[in-house]
Amino acid sequence: MDKWEERKRPIRLERRFEFENYEKTRDFLDRLGEQCEAVNRFPDISFGKTYVNITLRPDNQQSEDQISEDDYKFAEDIDGLLD
Amino acid sequence: MDKWEERKRPIRLERRFEFENYEKTRDFLDRLGEQCEAVNRFPDISFGKTYVNITLRPDNQQSEDQISEDDYKFAEDIDGLLD
Repeated sequence: MDKWEERKRPIRLERRFEFENYEKTRDFLDRLGEQCEAVNRFPDISFGKTYVNITLRPDNQQSEDQISEDDYKFAEDIDGLLD
Repeated sequence: MDKWEERKRPIRLERRFEFENYEKTRDFLDRLGEQCEAVNRFPDISFGKTYVNITLRPDNQQSEDQISEDDYKFAEDIDGLLD
């Protein structure tokens, strides 16, 4: 989890992934899309030819002010999509 | 072309597309990816469950300070990807 940064106002997790080329970027985006659909959770994603930046906001029924275990788990699952 | 906004510092064209659901967002992103590969041009794209935002910077051999006919053409081609 060391590559995800926790930021405030609004509270969120962010990580930037870098890729060698567009093909690898697209492959990752495709896997990411499937993962998002599988868990019905849709973070804000920005990307260019060789990068993908993901912003996860808390998906917490109790509070949007706190990152939960579920959020960290989702971040970890995204890390697992890397080659 | 009325939905693309021309912005400065840096000079660029931007357009936000809204979709009914994630499936339509993904369909558009897939077509957009193919178009980008076809013309070997990779704008910055951000998206969430039901929106896609595209930023086109000038792809001009002579100058990066000016949006060219090619840039407008690329923007128009992207509009053509909508259902």
